[in-house]
This record gives sequence, C-alpha cells and structure tokens, in this order.
Amino acid sequence: MGSFRGHALPGSFIFFTGAWWTAKCILKYACKKHKRTSYLGCKALFQRIEILEGIILICMALTGMTGEQFVPAGPHLVLYDHKEGQWVQLLSWHHFTMYFFFGLLGVMNILCFTISSLPTSLTKLMLSNAFFVEAFIFYNHTHGREMLDIFLHQLLVLVTFLAGLVAFVELFTRTNVIVELLRTSLVLLQGSWLWQIGFVLYPPSGGPAWDPNDHDNIMFLTICFCWHYALTFIVIGVIYAFVTWLVTSRLRRFCPSEVGLLKTADREQESEEEMRF
Amino acid sequence: MGSFRGHALPGSFIFFTGAWWTAKCILKYACKKHKRTSYLGCKALFQRIEILEGIILICMALTGMTGEQFVPAGPHLVLYDHKEGQWVQLLSWHHFTMYFFFGLLGVMNILCFTISSLPTSLTKLMLSNAFFVEAFIFYNHTHGREMLDIFLHQLLVLVTFLAGLVAFVELFTRTNVIVELLRTSLVLLQGSWLWQIGFVLYPPSGGPAWDPNDHDNIMFLTICFCWHYALTFIVIGVIYAFVTWLVTSRLRRFCPSEVGLLKTADREQESEEEMRF
Amino acid sequence: MGSFRGHALPGSFIFFTGAWWTAKCILKYACKKHKRTSYLGCKALFQRIEILEGIILICMALTGMTGEQFVPAGPHLVLYDHKEGQWVQLLSWHHFTMYFFFGLLGVMNILCFTISSLPTSLTKLMLSNAFFVEAFIFYNHTHGREMLDIFLHQLLVLVTFLAGLVAFVELFTRTNVIVELLRTSLVLLQGSWLWQIGFVLYPPSGGPAWDPNDHDNIMFLTICFCWHYALTFIVIGVIYAFVTWLVTSRLRRFCPSEVGLLKTADREQESEEEMRF
Amino acid sequence: MGSFRGHALPGSFIFFTGAWWTAKCILKYACKKHKRTSYLGCKALFQRIEILEGIILICMALTGMTGEQFVPAGPHLVLYDHKEGQWVQLLSWHHFTMYFFFGLLGVMNILCFTISSLPTSLTKLMLSNAFFVEAFIFYNHTHGREMLDIFLHQLLVLVTFLAGLVAFVELFTRTNVIVELLRTSLVLLQGSWLWQIGFVLYPPSGGPAWDPNDHDNIMFLTICFCWHYALTFIVIGVIYAFVTWLVTSRLRRFCPSEVGLLKTADREQESEEEMRF
Repeated sequence: MGSFRGHALPGSFIFFTGAWWTAKCILKYACKKHKRTSYLGCKALFQRIEILEGIILICMALTGMTGEQFVPAGPHLVLYDHKEGQWVQLLSWHHFTMYFFFGLLGVMNILCFTISSLPTSLTKLMLSNAFFVEAFIFYNHTHGREMLDIFLHQLLVLVTFLAGLVAFVELFTRTNVIVELLRTSLVLLQGSWLWQIGFVLYPPSGGPAWDPNDHDNIMFLTICFCWHYALTFIVIGVIYAFVTWLVTSRLRRFCPSEVGLLKTADREQESEEEMRF
Repeated sequence: MGSFRGHALPGSFIFFTGAWWTAKCILKYACKKHKRTSYLGCKALFQRIEILEGIILICMALTGMTGEQFVPAGPHLVLYDHKEGQWVQLLSWHHFTMYFFFGLLGVMNILCFTISSLPTSLTKLMLSNAFFVEAFIFYNHTHGREMLDIFLHQLLVLVTFLAGLVAFVELFTRTNVIVELLRTSLVLLQGSWLWQIGFVLYPPSGGPAWDPNDHDNIMFLTICFCWHYALTFIVIGVIYAFVTWLVTSRLRRFCPSEVGLLKTADREQESEEEMRF
Repeated sequence: MGSFRGHALPGSFIFFTGAWWTAKCILKYACKKHKRTSYLGCKALFQRIEILEGIILICMALTGMTGEQFVPAGPHLVLYDHKEGQWVQLLSWHHFTMYFFFGLLGVMNILCFTISSLPTSLTKLMLSNAFFVEAFIFYNHTHGREMLDIFLHQLLVLVTFLAGLVAFVELFTRTNVIVELLRTSLVLLQGSWLWQIGFVLYPPSGGPAWDPNDHDNIMFLTICFCWHYALTFIVIGVIYAFVTWLVTSRLRRFCPSEVGLLKTADREQESEEEMRF
Repeated sequence: MGSFRGHALPGSFIFFTGAWWTAKCILKYACKKHKRTSYLGCKALFQRIEILEGIILICMALTGMTGEQFVPAGPHLVLYDHKEGQWVQLLSWHHFTMYFFFGLLGVMNILCFTISSLPTSLTKLMLSNAFFVEAFIFYNHTHGREMLDIFLHQLLVLVTFLAGLVAFVELFTRTNVIVELLRTSLVLLQGSWLWQIGFVLYPPSGGPAWDPNDHDNIMFLTICFCWHYALTFIVIGVIYAFVTWLVTSRLRRFCPSEVGLLKTADREQESEEEMRF
C-alpha cells in the first residue's frame, strides 16, 4: 500500500460505501415519512438490498485480501520466513486483516437477512467491530515512521475509532437518522482522508514528498482535516436533496393526489414534534 | 489573535452567546411549566427566535472570518506562499476554520427551522461538531509554546470538548433542562476563560506577562479555573431568577387569576415527581 | 493538610458521608418496596432529611474552609504576596476550593428542596460537579513530588473521577438503586483511601515514611486499593442488613399483620421481574 | 504464574467460563422466543443454574487463591518479611486479589438468587467490578519488564477493561442478547489471549522465548490479537448453532405440532420488528 494508488483505491472504496450508506439511510427516512403509501414494497426491497450489500462487501474484501497477498511485493500467504528467521511483510498482513473483518461484516449481513431467527442488530455489532479493529491495527501500524506520517495515521485512527463508537452507540438507541448520518459522515471523512494521505506522502504529481519534520505541515493538516469534514456535510446535503427529490417525484408520478395529503400530514406531525421542543 | 483584545472579543462573544442560550433554555422550561396559558404563542415565537439566532451566528462568524483574514498581519486569503515555500499565517487560518464551523451551525439553524422535513436535532449535531472541531484545532494549536500558554489552552480544550460532549449526549436524551444548563455553563466558562487567557498572556495593564515557567502560576490557574466555573453558576442563578420573575410577572399582568391556579397545579405536579424520588 | 490528621479528618468525614448516603439510599429502596404502608410519611421525612443534609454539608464545608485558611501555617485569606512576588500557600487554597464546591452542593440541596420550581436533579449535577472539580484539582496537585506520593494521589483522582462519572450518569437514568450504591461505594473508598494515604505518607506510629522510590510499595498499594474496595462492599452489606432489619422490624411493631401480606406481594413482584430475566 | 502452565490454566478456565456464558445467554434467548411452551420450567431451572454457577465460581476462586499462596515459590500468606524489610511475592498477591474478586462474584450470585429482596443486577455490578479490578491490577503489574511482555499484558488489560465496560453498560440497558454476546466474546478472547501469552513468553516446545525487543513481534501480535477475536466469533457461531438445534429438536420431540406454530409466530414477530427498521 506504500503508493498513491494504494491509498486512493481503498479511499475511493470507503468513500463510495459511505455515500451509499448515506443514500440508504436517507431513503429509509424518507420512506418512513411516506409510510402509508410505499412502505410494504420498501420492506422487501431493503431486505434484498442488504443481502446485495453483503455480497458486494465480500467481493470487495476478497479483492483487497488477494490484492494485498499476491502483488509482486506481497507476502504470498507466507507469514514467517524460517530461513531468514523473520516475519514476512507484516504491513500487508495488517491490511489483509482489516479487509477480513469487513468481509465478516458482509457475511453477517447476508446471514442476518436470510436467517430470520438472528437479530438484525448483529450487523451493527460487526460494523462497529470492523471499525474498532481497523483503528486498533492502524494505531499499531506506524512504528518508527516520520512525525508527519504518524500524525496523518493518527487522524485516520481517530476518525475510524469515532465511526466505530457511533456504530456501537447505535446498538443501544432506537433508530435515529441523525446518528446514522453522523456515522456515514465519519465514513466519508475516512475515505477522503485516505486520498489526502496519498497526496501528502506520495504526491501523484511526482514532486517531492512534504517535509516530514516541518511542524507547519501538521498545523496545516489539522485544518485540512476539518475542511474535509465540512466537505462531507456538503456531500451529505447533496445526497439528501437528491434522494428527497427522487422519493417525492416518484410518488408524485404514481399517485399525485396522495402527495398533497402526505404533505399536510407531515406538517401536522412536524408541528406535533415541535410542540415538544 | 495574539493580543488582549484578540482574546477578550471572542471571549465576550462566547460569553454572551452562552448567557443567551441559558436565558432561552430557562424561558422554554418556564413556558413549558405554564403550558396551558401561553404555550401556543411561544411555539411560533421560538421558531422565529431560532431563525434570528441563526442569522446572528452567521453574521458573527462572517465578521470573525473576515477579521482574521484582513487584519494587517493576516493571511489575506493566501494559504501557501510559493515564493517563500511556506504556509502563511496558519494560526489565523485555524481561527478562520473555527468561525467557519460556527457559521455552519447558523446555516443549519436557519435550514432546520424553515424546511419542515429536516429533523431539528441536526442543529444539536452541528453544535456538537462545532465544539469538537474547536477542541481539535486548539489541541493542535500550541506547538512549541511555553508551558503556561499550553496549560491555559489545554483547559480551553477541556471545556470545549466537554461542551461538545454534552451537546452530543443531548442527541440521545429527551429534552432535559439540567443537561442543557450544564452545556450553557460550559459555554459561559469558555467565554470567561478566554478573558482569563488574555489577562495572563497579554496583561492589559501593560505590565510584564506572567512568568511562563513558574509552576506556581499553573497551580493558581487550576483553582482560578474552578472559581470561573463557580462564577458561571452564579450567572445562571441570576438569569434563572430574572427569567422566572419575568414569566411570572408577565403572566400576572395579563391573567392574574390564572397564576394562582397554575401555582397550585405546579405544586401538585412537583409532588407527583417527588413521589418517584 | 501535610500531616496524618490532615488526611484522616477529611477521610473520616467523606467515609461517614458515604455511609450515610448508603443508608439513605437503601432506606428509600426499602420504603419503596413497602410503599403501600409507610410511603406518604416517608416522603415528607425525606424532604426534611435532604434539607438537614444540606445544612450539615454547609457547616462541614465552612469548617474545612476556615480550617484551611486560619491554621497557623495557612494563607489567612491572602492569595498573593506582593512583597515577595509569589503566591501564598496554594495547596491550602486548593483544599479551600474543593470544600467550597461541597458547600455549593449543600446550598443547592437546601434550595432544591425548599423552592418547588427547581428540578431536584440539580443536586445530582452539583454533586457530580463537586467530584469532578475535586478530581481536577487533585490531578494538578502533586507537581514535583515523589513517585509514591503521586501514585497515591492518582488513585484518589481515579476514584473521585469515577464517583463524579457515576453521579453524572445518574442524571440520565431513572432512579436505580444499584447505580446509587456504586456511587456510594466509591465515596466510601475515597474516604478510606485518604486514611491509607495518611498512613503511608505520615505514619502515625512515628516511624519513618515508606521509601518513595521503591516500586514494590506501588505494587503493594495497587492491591491494597482493591482490598479497600472489597471492604466497602462489606460495609455496604452490613448497612443493608441493618437498614432492612430496621424497616422490617419497625413495620412489624406497628402493623404485624401487614408484613406477611407485603412479603407475599414482594415475592410476587420479584418473580415477575425474574420473568424478564 | 511465571510459566506456560501458569497462563494456560487460568486461560482455559476463563475460556470455558466464557463459552458457558455464551451458551447460557443463547439458551435464554432461544427459550424466550419459544416462551409459550417451556418458559415456566426454564425460570426455575435458570435460577438453580445461577446458584450452581456461583458455587463453581467460588470453588474455582478458592482453588486459584490457595494455589497462588501455597505453591513452593508462593508467599504462604506472608505479606511482609520484617527480617528482610521487603514485600513477599507481590505478583502472587496480585493474582490472589483477582481470584478473590471473582469469588465475591460467586458469593453475590448465590445471595442474589436465594434472597429474593436483593436486585439481581447486583451480579452484573460485581461482574463489572471483577473485570475492572483485574484490568487495574494487570495495568500495574508489568513494571520493569520487557517491551514485548508489557505489550502482551496491555492487550490483556484492554480486553478485560472492555469486558468490564460492556458489563457496566448492561446495567443500564434492558436485556439485549447482542450486548451479552459482545461481553462473552471479550471473555473468550481474554481466555485465548492468556494461552497466546503463555506461548510467546514461555514456549511449551522448550525453544527460546521470542525476542522481546524486536518490534516486528509486536506488529505480528497486533494482528494475531485480531485473529483471536475473529476466532471467538466462530466459537460463538458454533455454540449458537448447537444450542438452537438443541432447543428446537427438544421441542420437536415433546410437542412437534407446536413447533410449526411457533415458527410462524416467530416469523410474524420478526417481520414486525423489521417494520421498524
């Protein structure tokens, strides 16, 4: 993974997963609001989507795992070189383990939505575990590297840990769109931050890497991290607008009279909620 | 911001925001208690207040952002000086980013209270984010400074982080006046502590700054921080007394007979609550 | 406070406060179980007890505050010696500030149970604040001391912080006897640990203090801390047995026929609870 | 405990306890699902099981405590050697204290399920305490040892602390099978990790111990820890399948007609739950 592409590829993967989760979460929220019309169709649809998601996650994890193992410089499934008396390519094995846990998440997704006796919150638990394991591995990943490299990975650990924490908290609260969006915003941030790491450590322009001992670089990356975070909110806002427009327009096409009714109902419900303020 | 005024101005701004939030929160609590009389009027009023608050927050954030950029020693929107090969005035950019997130909070305040389909707890999330971002930036803000300076800013990070944490916890609990007051007390503390930082690092009397390596100064500032915190309780107590008096007297003026009834009802409700003790 | 007595006195005070809170909490639990008979009398009684507790807390805090200020070596209300250009007896001012916050707790106790419009959970908030302030001050209290001294105070900070945390968590949960007992067990532990600190740093037998640089002492104090904690459970068990016996026997004296009925009712309720297991 | 057997024995004990708790928790979950048929029999059965568990825990704790004290190199109940002026075998006393707290848990188990007036969540509190005490002692256990040894024990502290934290969180949530399984997975991990520590520090093959200063060993143990965690999920999956099969087949044997009905009922309930998604 010690290359620009090695950071940009998983970064893109995580970013699009985050964007997809955001869309799914907003879609569910919007469907719930328009419950009376399209809900029953949604239910079966979402179940199939979850299983599909599981399959995609497993495919991605398998790709990542084989990629880490069988690139030319990879360990080729050898863990310990008995001749040399040393471990083989432990950093690749680290990435391999991370992918493995995301694969487990995919397996659990499929199991929970096909076997009806399993509680569906098991997927939340596995998601939280996958993030915690990732944070734990990245935390022990940067021994002996430069200050700048360590700082970049520490921020990655921070955002991964927070994503795991939010997923863990979701185990205990009833479904809450705000908390789910917070989690997906952290996943988006993780994806875009991997791109940033690639840009800083392996500039794709071919120019020299940033000075790893200049503290000003760290000062800049601190605010750069915050800007990335602000960006994720814009991404979420765009997805929100798009999904809401989609749900509303699709409803209008099929049952235009009902939308007017729903809007009134929504506003009533909303005003009830605000009563509680 | 490296001056007394540079700490006192944001300090005053944050202190008054905190005082206003305290007043609003107590007003809501008092209105809720007298629900049967003035509640419906309150609801529309509070919605307008929230939008107004959003506008004021945006104005303040814009002022802060332009101020940081266009003061004589500011970066004038230049981030990287290609000639010198170094970053320009990163500390100003730090402050700029903090103001930006408070501006986002203002935008979200306006959006949530005008677009009815957005959940109002989004403002809580943005508030919590704004505090966390502030804590994160201040945490990476004091590299290479003196011990006293670092200690002062660490306490600021502590109080900002706690304010963000309490705002985050509020996402999960039903409205609870105690928790809201705890949050506003931390905001007040943050404002008054910024004044204290100004006094210690840039004495307005023109005298010499405090000895940054004398550990006794840190010992004193530890308890000074606690006294500031005790002060915020007195401020909250005064606001509480004032707001309660206002609500009661205003009610008495319009419908004196009803107040007697309400008081009896209050006491009954209270005694029911104590039954649970 | 640099003496055996200076640690044993506040230790005893905190231990007895903890024991009293344990007894009160178990008494409430027992009264609640026997709700149908003696509850209404209890309610008014507990309100008076809270006010009395507030008065006692204020007296204790005032005693502590004046004691810290006006002992021969105390600061006599002088904070800064302008002649010498140095702070006066900051450690005494630290203790003074801690006592002050416990005094605030007493004031809040009285206010909340006399003014009916104040929510009673304010006392919980003040309690949690008092513990957090104490933990914060002790954390910044031991600069430049020996390893053993620092370790002893770190454990004190730990237990105080945990007591504050549990009191804070209580703000969000409905009354739960287990959590209250956990808090009181931590208060008891804090009290008995202050005794231990006195014994280690200022042996009352007049013998030499423990070797502050022998790491074995720290290894021993680690388990000693756990034994103190086990001790608090025994104390709580004894108080539990005593209070339960008191409530039952007092009930038996006044209305012996009813006790039999209650026991049956209890068992039924219990079995219902276990149904949920 | 400084031997392979000294780590493998408690490791096996903890692993089997974890496996048993997993089975019990899944059994309860399965019984609850089939509530209408076998529940009343279950209730009395589980109560007896809890008491039996308490007795076994006490026996194990007593064995551990006497073992630590009376092995040839043990302290034989002597805490301080006045002749030599030093503490005797503090590491054995550390282990002794840990066992003692697990013994307390056993005592509490018996008390809570025989005395009906005690709340059953006291056992949860004691469980959480036992784990926290264990984490606290291990945290202060490895002074002056090699880097590898410290790292191995730090991971043990991490997993023990997390198990305590999850048990503590369970105090506040209504019974939740996912959270219970998370706790048991951490207990299983703790057990298997103790085996790993034994293998690394005292290789049973008689070969030389691992190089304690080679950082690659730490890099490997990081992912090894994650693999152990993945393993616990497989163990839990096997137990889940076995217990579910047992409950279903036992039901089918006694009341075959009812199983069909139950399955339909389950599916209905499940679909209701998914309605909430």
